[in-house]
Amino acid sequence: MSDTKQMIETVPTGVPPDAEGVAAAIDACLACLQACTTCADADLAEPDVDAMRVCIAECLNCADVCDATARLLSRPAHWDPAVIHPLLQACVRVCGACAEECAQHAHHHRHCAICETVCRTCVDACRTLLAGATFTEPADAGGR
Amino acid sequence: MSDTKQMIETVPTGVPPDAEGVAAAIDACLACLQACTTCADADLAEPDVDAMRVCIAECLNCADVCDATARLLSRPAHWDPAVIHPLLQACVRVCGACAEECAQHAHHHRHCAICETVCRTCVDACRTLLAGATFTEPADAGGR
Amino acid sequence: MSDTKQMIETVPTGVPPDAEGVAAAIDACLACLQACTTCADADLAEPDVDAMRVCIAECLNCADVCDATARLLSRPAHWDPAVIHPLLQACVRVCGACAEECAQHAHHHRHCAICETVCRTCVDACRTLLAGATFTEPADAGGR
Amino acid sequence: MSDTKQMIETVPTGVPPDAEGVAAAIDACLACLQACTTCADADLAEPDVDAMRVCIAECLNCADVCDATARLLSRPAHWDPAVIHPLLQACVRVCGACAEECAQHAHHHRHCAICETVCRTCVDACRTLLAGATFTEPADAGGR
Repeated sequence: MSDTKQMIETVPTGVPPDAEGVAAAIDACLACLQACTTCADADLAEPDVDAMRVCIAECLNCADVCDATARLLSRPAHWDPAVIHPLLQACVRVCGACAEECAQHAHHHRHCAICETVCRTCVDACRTLLAGATFTEPADAGGR
Repeated sequence: MSDTKQMIETVPTGVPPDAEGVAAAIDACLACLQACTTCADADLAEPDVDAMRVCIAECLNCADVCDATARLLSRPAHWDPAVIHPLLQACVRVCGACAEECAQHAHHHRHCAICETVCRTCVDACRTLLAGATFTEPADAGGR
Repeated sequence: MSDTKQMIETVPTGVPPDAEGVAAAIDACLACLQACTTCADADLAEPDVDAMRVCIAECLNCADVCDATARLLSRPAHWDPAVIHPLLQACVRVCGACAEECAQHAHHHRHCAICETVCRTCVDACRTLLAGATFTEPADAGGR
Repeated sequence: MSDTKQMIETVPTGVPPDAEGVAAAIDACLACLQACTTCADADLAEPDVDAMRVCIAECLNCADVCDATARLLSRPAHWDPAVIHPLLQACVRVCGACAEECAQHAHHHRHCAICETVCRTCVDACRTLLAGATFTEPADAGGR
């Protein structure tokens, strides 16, 4: 159990309409930052590194976008939906691409199998958030 | 003169169609990461911190998105236009919002005046890139 | 339950002597990145923002050091103890300073109370790692 | 010419004793973040990727430590020398290790030749800062 939802609920400007979804997306992004960073490191140490080039690059891109997404989602008192919306779209796409690539190697590299699952969870969490009240009712999203 | 353009041109998969524009956007994002981080720190030390709340928050969001954008643009051998496109859009929006906010304080806080200019340069560099051959001809953009 | 320990154990160069401690430190750093980012955002929205300046600045510094520490610890196949050792020391110090500052406000700001606890957990996790086999037996730490 | 020194000098708590050195270290760290990120990406696309594994990993670690160091140095109103000192030490070590590794490949990979130079500049800038008035006279370093 993370403290993320509790933290989000302490913001004095009021809780986002979908605090649970926001916390889930933050936690999924941080898990993705972790899994992708270790997956790239493990890929680099595999005998078949030649076949893992795209996987490494996707993992690095995924880690960086997830890091930024987790940070912006963690500032609910100052959300700008016009910024977070395309950022979440970038996150959905990079996590989806990373999951696809890891899936190619999941049968022989356990780190890719775990990383694929973590990335898919992040895709789902970001999509749920994009479809939820936080972004479909931008007037209530707090911030500017 | 930064080394960014030279670095971008060394990538063995071939130079992006708009290497100069890519390098300009990377340098603009890194300058924005720097200016926004110091602007937020200076805001926090101003007597009128109460009036600077939104400026601080915008600067923090801007620094994080610019950091991720600079990192992804710096991996031209493994670009995914479907990821970089929305990321650049997020970057244009957050830099634009930060510039607008800094402009409100530019007459009495020199850090806001400089930060506004740096943010506007980044908006222009990202917009130029979005409109250029790198993204309008995605088949040549390298990557997966 | 995070996937971090499982990920660390998949690295083909062999598991660090203290995989559980490594995973605990990574998770603590990521939790700290999250809590500190939201604590700073909440501070910025409090009526007494004037009294929260140092707290905001400490939280921002803490988030950035924890982010880098989580990333380096997440690359166990390529650890350089000469780098990770001072980085963990910086992390212990910034988390300790942030916890001290948050403690001053914990009685009236719930985000500071939670953030203090999260920071102290991170201090303990990094100290345990610094004292453990991973760093006291550097020859076994993998990497270069 | 970057705006970094100008930004550092706008901080209302007063200019650090060695503002020029601080700005030089920030710019060197950002240049290193850029060069190392592109060097790792180019390495991943080289025919001899098998020989570039350590270079890629060093570049990734170097980029992350330089990013955090640039961010903390960019908050001169709230410096904690007890945090920045070990962070600069980690930065000197990781940039030095990355330069050594890139030097092994500099004769056949131009990105490694440039990256080596950028890393060595960062080592020098951080060492100069560590030896200067900002850290040898910590009482004047501002912050808490």
